[in-house]
Amino acid sequence: MMNVDDRLNALRRLMKERNLSAYIIPTEDFHGSEYVGEYFKVREYLSGFTGSAGTLIVLSEEAALWTDGRYFLQASRQLAGSSVTLMRAGQPGVPTMAEFLRDHLTPDSIVGFDGRTITERFVRAVGKKTDTKKIRFDGSEDLVDLIWTDRPAMPAEPVWELDVRYAGKSREEKLGEVRAKMREEGADGLLLTALDEIAWLLNLRGNDVAYTPVFLSYMIMTQDKAVLCVREQALSDELRKKLLQAGVTTAPYEGVEQLLHDIPPGSRIWLDSGSVNYRLMHCLPAEVRKIDKSSPVTMMKACKNPCETEHIREAHVKDGAAVTRWIHWLKEKVESDAGEETERQAKITELSAARQLEAFRQQAEGYLGPSFSPIVAYGPHGAIVHYEPTEQTDTELVKGTLCLADTGGHYLEGTTDVTRTIALGNVSEEEKRCYTIALRGHLNLGAAKFVQGVTGQNLDVLARGPLWEAGMDYNHGTGHGVGYVLNVHEGPQRFQWRSSTLIQNVPLEEGMVISNEPGVYLEGKFGIRHENLVLCRKGEKNEYGQFLYLEPLTMVPFDRDAILPDLLSDRERKLLNEYHALVYKTLEPYFSGEEKLWLRQATGEI
Amino acid sequence: MMNVDDRLNALRRLMKERNLSAYIIPTEDFHGSEYVGEYFKVREYLSGFTGSAGTLIVLSEEAALWTDGRYFLQASRQLAGSSVTLMRAGQPGVPTMAEFLRDHLTPDSIVGFDGRTITERFVRAVGKKTDTKKIRFDGSEDLVDLIWTDRPAMPAEPVWELDVRYAGKSREEKLGEVRAKMREEGADGLLLTALDEIAWLLNLRGNDVAYTPVFLSYMIMTQDKAVLCVREQALSDELRKKLLQAGVTTAPYEGVEQLLHDIPPGSRIWLDSGSVNYRLMHCLPAEVRKIDKSSPVTMMKACKNPCETEHIREAHVKDGAAVTRWIHWLKEKVESDAGEETERQAKITELSAARQLEAFRQQAEGYLGPSFSPIVAYGPHGAIVHYEPTEQTDTELVKGTLCLADTGGHYLEGTTDVTRTIALGNVSEEEKRCYTIALRGHLNLGAAKFVQGVTGQNLDVLARGPLWEAGMDYNHGTGHGVGYVLNVHEGPQRFQWRSSTLIQNVPLEEGMVISNEPGVYLEGKFGIRHENLVLCRKGEKNEYGQFLYLEPLTMVPFDRDAILPDLLSDRERKLLNEYHALVYKTLEPYFSGEEKLWLRQATGEI
Repeated sequence: MMNVDDRLNALRRLMKERNLSAYIIPTEDFHGSEYVGEYFKVREYLSGFTGSAGTLIVLSEEAALWTDGRYFLQASRQLAGSSVTLMRAGQPGVPTMAEFLRDHLTPDSIVGFDGRTITERFVRAVGKKTDTKKIRFDGSEDLVDLIWTDRPAMPAEPVWELDVRYAGKSREEKLGEVRAKMREEGADGLLLTALDEIAWLLNLRGNDVAYTPVFLSYMIMTQDKAVLCVREQALSDELRKKLLQAGVTTAPYEGVEQLLHDIPPGSRIWLDSGSVNYRLMHCLPAEVRKIDKSSPVTMMKACKNPCETEHIREAHVKDGAAVTRWIHWLKEKVESDAGEETERQAKITELSAARQLEAFRQQAEGYLGPSFSPIVAYGPHGAIVHYEPTEQTDTELVKGTLCLADTGGHYLEGTTDVTRTIALGNVSEEEKRCYTIALRGHLNLGAAKFVQGVTGQNLDVLARGPLWEAGMDYNHGTGHGVGYVLNVHEGPQRFQWRSSTLIQNVPLEEGMVISNEPGVYLEGKFGIRHENLVLCRKGEKNEYGQFLYLEPLTMVPFDRDAILPDLLSDRERKLLNEYHALVYKTLEPYFSGEEKLWLRQATGEI
Repeated sequence: MMNVDDRLNALRRLMKERNLSAYIIPTEDFHGSEYVGEYFKVREYLSGFTGSAGTLIVLSEEAALWTDGRYFLQASRQLAGSSVTLMRAGQPGVPTMAEFLRDHLTPDSIVGFDGRTITERFVRAVGKKTDTKKIRFDGSEDLVDLIWTDRPAMPAEPVWELDVRYAGKSREEKLGEVRAKMREEGADGLLLTALDEIAWLLNLRGNDVAYTPVFLSYMIMTQDKAVLCVREQALSDELRKKLLQAGVTTAPYEGVEQLLHDIPPGSRIWLDSGSVNYRLMHCLPAEVRKIDKSSPVTMMKACKNPCETEHIREAHVKDGAAVTRWIHWLKEKVESDAGEETERQAKITELSAARQLEAFRQQAEGYLGPSFSPIVAYGPHGAIVHYEPTEQTDTELVKGTLCLADTGGHYLEGTTDVTRTIALGNVSEEEKRCYTIALRGHLNLGAAKFVQGVTGQNLDVLARGPLWEAGMDYNHGTGHGVGYVLNVHEGPQRFQWRSSTLIQNVPLEEGMVISNEPGVYLEGKFGIRHENLVLCRKGEKNEYGQFLYLEPLTMVPFDRDAILPDLLSDRERKLLNEYHALVYKTLEPYFSGEEKLWLRQATGEI
């Protein structure tokens, strides 16, 4: 079997034959997805790095991988055995990919990539920043396919329907709203390529990507036609018929390229060059006029409708009951030996604890499965921001430090994502201090009230402020949007103070679901993260404008055993007590006996 | 004498002769200045509106003026007698200037303006947003000059030198640093048009604009030449000689156009199309390559050098002593009649109080004059954000409400800008509540600690949060940069949560001086604003990055008589007490006797 360097060298031989000086391998599939099916894990195949974000650039003599702060530790471990250099994106002195290419390539070099995995906008941006070298780009060939002999098949799992009872709007209604927006824009046609947007629009779900109920597809629509390009075998005759009733015809998945070729010259086509891949952009005839802006489905999907929000609350109650039950179970099991060196019935480990949480979640009606690979990270593992326990790293959970659990589920009623950090036995003053400071940030952001127009970029400081005050920080965003039985990470809203030329900051709007998850990570010691999902809602409207606020969706207590109450302000203490009172009131019907007594104590005032 | 509508109609006759469908009249002079000399007050001449921001668009049948929230009240009063419609920029339903032109003009219309008063970038942006109408632009003629028969002369006041003892760096050093940046950028030439940048770079000051010690000029430099285009009579022979010693030659002010015409084709010229006027941009030969980015002087000027910061602290101590003395004087005078209806020696009014403050400031060595037209706004006048008392509006200051004073001075040691809101006698609970809420915002922003990279856009919520929490807001930015014996408003740093396509948000850097000035304005009742200038400084540097914090420069107590201590958190109370202790310690040497006793009480703990 080839190791990473063998694979890189095989790629280099193909690059040389084609006169390519560099080859770019991003994480994305053909749809810009964050999480991708096995077939698309090309970057992992060529580097060994398994994180959900990162881009590999291979040159004739070297290779480098860019990833963000969440993955610095993990990537440095996974790249250790290879010749790939880790580029810690955004850190002082670390070049961007464009700077790296500009500095390493000779003038008129050709840079290759699979044009289906990279956006036109990315290529344009790199081209602009390397213009002194007049680099050319060639996206015509997937070279990795030629060397990856045991590549998994492209998926085509059965597509299923999300009942309108859960979706809140029929696909006919949604298509009608999209067409109204197309008329407003003067768009003759619309190209959709984001898998979650197509799934949301058609009230369909799939299973082509682990943890993400989407299916491989493209969609092109006009005022009177809508064509879904989809893997033939994924769609049942019944669904095909239902789609036809809504005016949606189907075509083969790969057929999208021909459909784009055939668009009549002079048409105005709405597409988002920040998400449509390079290959598709080049399928469009030159005479087609592009309306280049974010798809109308993005905001429709992000701003949940009243039926969706009502269900999402239900999902969070079920999920909160499962996670809370699990916390009680975990603390009791780990703390039960009361310090005696007796033999216990079975060790609890990160993996076995995660399995137990999954078992608790499965007890709920409507539960579909995890919304991402569960993170149960004990002690120092908690400091690895996106640590996932494996058989190799699995660790026993014993008293004396913190355990971070970041998990989530899909329910017919919505998608959850929650992080709690749990004190197992007595934890140190340092752990408590960090726990409390991060909690202050979480509480302050959660209590934000603001005027319409404010973005997550404006509010991030509320979460980070208490950490900055203490000379600390965390190397990830404070919050991401969450889909409805769809991607656990969705845009366009987010909490992140940094500007990005690639991501536009949009105002927070009623119906958006977004995570609030500040943390503290001390390498080699422990990690802390406090994550609730919150729902953006309209508050009062007066002469100053429309005010908005955040309603907590997640219903799980924070661990009072890890809080230093003296570090909280009066307001923060009040916010925590109010949240805990709400958690008790909401979850109390799901608990009885000793568990209920514990819940009352765990949500009591401090 | 012609009134505003007569003037507009005279302009319309000229527009018709030239086949212009619209004429745009901004506030700016030929240099994009915020405050301009009398010669340049064209928009005021044609509309009657005297504010420092606003653009008039004249059509054949109507005219409209856009201004921002600071001026809504003032503009609506000043436009009341004319046919000009007020456009409250940024308010719901109010079109932008581009939208207005797009909706009112027929295809292929020509829009005229004086090309020296509008930037190329503005014209491009309007052109883009009106592209469906294919509007053409003609910036060739200053039509207002033809109708404004008693127009003041273009100024040419004597230029003076700011000693290197105050500037901290010689002009030779500064020119050398600029040239180093030009080499880094690969720029053959640099065009400077912002008056404060030229003044700062050459350690010169002028008097062509009220309150702003700049002089009309342009500057073009290469690696071995530097030409200052300046009004001939403004420069003494001695200064001309000194400039020559630094390698700076002079040319006539209007000569800049020919110099730009003569730039050799193929040269790379650094300029900022967001600040260079349209006419100058069109003087450049087509073959000249433009490096379009903000001038290197912008950041050099914004980040004060250690000599400048040391002096700025001194200026603020002198200024703080004058303002504090004035507050004592004002409160004592107004409150001295002790409720009895005895005849007082002299009424105190907004204007007379402002004169008294100026008299106190003039006692300080190095005082040069006010840095802007002083605002002393009593009761309801305080709610007009940029109210300036006039003989017509002047009001007696008597007990029972708040008085807002926003004033500042130029000293050889720097420029100040301070706002205090003063309780005269007993004020209402509502006034105290609003005073305290705005003070919470001021204290929270002032205490910010943050990592390098953070912008004022990220931090604004710290000041606004307490107001938003109470369902209130203020319709102006939270803070602006301040120059060194230069513009009292300078970029690029600012505290403002809103994004703007015209203004780039830059990270806060060590040495930046910026105001922190949240407020509350209740129309018809009162206005409150708390403004300190703060200095951005480096704090600790650790594994999380370089931390920065804000040092208060302004040294004037807040009025404890208007504070409701119960509304302050423990932290806010501590911040206020610490600030007041610092004010006492700093100002105490300047006070004695009864005044000093008062100061001790005014800065005592709450």
